[in-house]
Amino acid sequence: MSRTRRLRLGAFMRPVSIHTGAWRYPGAYPDANFNFAHIKRFAQRLEAAKFDAFFMADHLAVLNMPVDALKRSHTVTSFEPFTLLSALAAVTERIGLVATASTTFDAPFHVARRFASLDHISGGRAGWNIVTTANPDAALNFGQDEQMDHGARYQRAREFYDVVTGLWDSFADDAFVRDVEAGTYFDPARMHVLDHRGPSLSVRGPLNIARPVQGWPVVVQAGSSEPGRQLAAETAEVVFSAEPSLMAAKAFYADVKGRMRTLGRDPEHLKILPAAFLVVGDTVEEARARRARLDALVHYDSGIGSLNGILGTDVSGHDPDGPLPEIPDTNASKSGRARMVEMARRENLTIRELAQKAGSYAGLAFVGTPGTIADGMEEWLDGEACDGFNIMVSDLPAGLDAVVDRVIPELQRRGLFRTAYEGPTLRDNLGLPRPANRFFPDA
Amino acid sequence: MSRTRRLRLGAFMRPVSIHTGAWRYPGAYPDANFNFAHIKRFAQRLEAAKFDAFFMADHLAVLNMPVDALKRSHTVTSFEPFTLLSALAAVTERIGLVATASTTFDAPFHVARRFASLDHISGGRAGWNIVTTANPDAALNFGQDEQMDHGARYQRAREFYDVVTGLWDSFADDAFVRDVEAGTYFDPARMHVLDHRGPSLSVRGPLNIARPVQGWPVVVQAGSSEPGRQLAAETAEVVFSAEPSLMAAKAFYADVKGRMRTLGRDPEHLKILPAAFLVVGDTVEEARARRARLDALVHYDSGIGSLNGILGTDVSGHDPDGPLPEIPDTNASKSGRARMVEMARRENLTIRELAQKAGSYAGLAFVGTPGTIADGMEEWLDGEACDGFNIMVSDLPAGLDAVVDRVIPELQRRGLFRTAYEGPTLRDNLGLPRPANRFFPDA
Repeated sequence: MSRTRRLRLGAFMRPVSIHTGAWRYPGAYPDANFNFAHIKRFAQRLEAAKFDAFFMADHLAVLNMPVDALKRSHTVTSFEPFTLLSALAAVTERIGLVATASTTFDAPFHVARRFASLDHISGGRAGWNIVTTANPDAALNFGQDEQMDHGARYQRAREFYDVVTGLWDSFADDAFVRDVEAGTYFDPARMHVLDHRGPSLSVRGPLNIARPVQGWPVVVQAGSSEPGRQLAAETAEVVFSAEPSLMAAKAFYADVKGRMRTLGRDPEHLKILPAAFLVVGDTVEEARARRARLDALVHYDSGIGSLNGILGTDVSGHDPDGPLPEIPDTNASKSGRARMVEMARRENLTIRELAQKAGSYAGLAFVGTPGTIADGMEEWLDGEACDGFNIMVSDLPAGLDAVVDRVIPELQRRGLFRTAYEGPTLRDNLGLPRPANRFFPDA
Repeated sequence: MSRTRRLRLGAFMRPVSIHTGAWRYPGAYPDANFNFAHIKRFAQRLEAAKFDAFFMADHLAVLNMPVDALKRSHTVTSFEPFTLLSALAAVTERIGLVATASTTFDAPFHVARRFASLDHISGGRAGWNIVTTANPDAALNFGQDEQMDHGARYQRAREFYDVVTGLWDSFADDAFVRDVEAGTYFDPARMHVLDHRGPSLSVRGPLNIARPVQGWPVVVQAGSSEPGRQLAAETAEVVFSAEPSLMAAKAFYADVKGRMRTLGRDPEHLKILPAAFLVVGDTVEEARARRARLDALVHYDSGIGSLNGILGTDVSGHDPDGPLPEIPDTNASKSGRARMVEMARRENLTIRELAQKAGSYAGLAFVGTPGTIADGMEEWLDGEACDGFNIMVSDLPAGLDAVVDRVIPELQRRGLFRTAYEGPTLRDNLGLPRPANRFFPDA
């Protein structure tokens, strides 16, 4: 079967399961999130299944929840993205490697340089997930008593993006002539000194590394607030979205791609990949039972901690069996909070019910057989609700095995997913163009 | 032959040859410094030869020299240390991985976390080379118009070290109980919140990663100025020194180890490894001819650039065939400048002669047969001028092959170097104790 549109699939792998009960599931590796030998094998399995990318979220603090909730969390100890993805680059050959890096708590010279280095080491497989970091505890780890407000974070993020991409363009692709006879290693006429001076950042350049293999590593973005959508339409090549319903996802898709048209960008040059939690069974009933068993392993202390984190405010003083109170506007991620509040009102949920959803993953889930899961994905793709998914597996290793061994072959059988990589770089596989160098458009 | 003291050997591998003529040497790989496949093979060869560590210097800007000199430099494009060493961690098993990280232009939370992550990924093989970053161009890449002065940099470095080591101790070694039944991932009583508030840094903690395999990655230091020596005596476990003569090295060794005794530290808990440039031949004459040929490949534009960088001032306006003028005190590394000025006066060298030495490596060199090189190393070890060396090879791959295939076996034959690794961690191989956790001394 020939189709014009196929799914792009990322695997959300930090933590290896986002479900806070996953590490307790029978047969699961309790240390799966912090065991390099395991993660190496997971990445190699995902590559054998032709996934586009291994995607790492990141936190610059332990999760901001009371210690009674925190002590339940398998994410409290995790690898740092660049060290983990660089190690994986050496033991994989084709899968993309997407790292999260913060524009609020890092320097653009460091960020530009690490992504360029990862892109060179991996032969063109790096992607940068731009985040502004919503966790207020992160600020305290970087000498700031007060978290920068949401608007200021996004302003800085936009300027940070300009600086990082400008630094990536420090050298033309043909700058390094390595002329042994003349003793000329590079041609100075093919080097550009950025000399950026803006409201938030001053960075001279040039970067001390050649232009990335991909020109620029793939730019990924996840926020879905108003400034998040605008930043995505202006800059992103992949959006990791989190719309929980088909209708909301279609609206988000139309909105972001419409903004791109307004800006003169080709909508094909941005792939929208909603997060999707997968639970696979031989029957739908078995898959649902598996999910229920998993959800039952979420400790209330953990669920309420996740809920408070998403809301950006502590609701644990309220009656667990009563409704959600009014939630004040905070500096936390606006989109996550809005989705949770909306769900509480719509489904008339108590705090206890919401806490279990928060701890067990409240967003889009495909729970069923390989066939029903493929049906759901096909509906989303054909309905222009997405260009693919960022998949979260339920538990490790069994949940990952089920996706790789059963769901992927079903998607391939239907012509919905590749059976071979299109090329060596992440851009090749996502169908994204290689950006021209803004200072050397001829190169 | 049984000896009580054996050499510890690091390989200085960023750049893979420090000699600015090396990339032009007949048979050399011109891109050796920026080709991951090559560097992976070099690291595996060094590991097969039982080297203690692969050591990466670092720069946070291109070298500060005029573009006519810069264009000669094979170091202008290099991998970033954490991405390169993490990739090497996945394809090696025993060799130590020492990365340079700046206390002036990075945040202690990031530095602590990346080294902890590298230590976990590598199974306990990470080392942190603490630098304060002397290149004034680095400041311009991090939003600072003026470089922080030498004294202030060292004050911040000392506090930065306290914060990083404090963050490494965030969790007791036994904190992660992963009790599946109870749903307890870690024991909160075994977590410490640092809450550091000092003159330069405020960092709350805890770190979001388990205590490193080695407790702390090995702490390495290179400065040999007065504050550099004191910082080393207080904190370092390896000193990468650069004394060019046996007499100077003995004095440095006695001074630093004496400071340790005054501080109550065991002098055995710090290994002093002078940089040593090796050129190997079948005869001493052949080795000298090889060195002369290599030196002749240093372009004058490149040599004068290296010299200006070491001096921290531009002397290119002076007569190349005249003597070195008075050099003002600057914010550049004091020890490098002092050594160069002293050599100029002692050997009565012109600027042109000094420039060639600067570009071709002006420090300690063993140029000879495997036998005469081993003689020299033995004299330094037995004379208490060092505990080993940080070796720089002349050119790649031939210069590295000569060291691995000819010099190492000669050192092993004499009982001067190990034939098998002592243990899995860098501390095991260097003979360094695992630090106790300052917050959980019982663990």
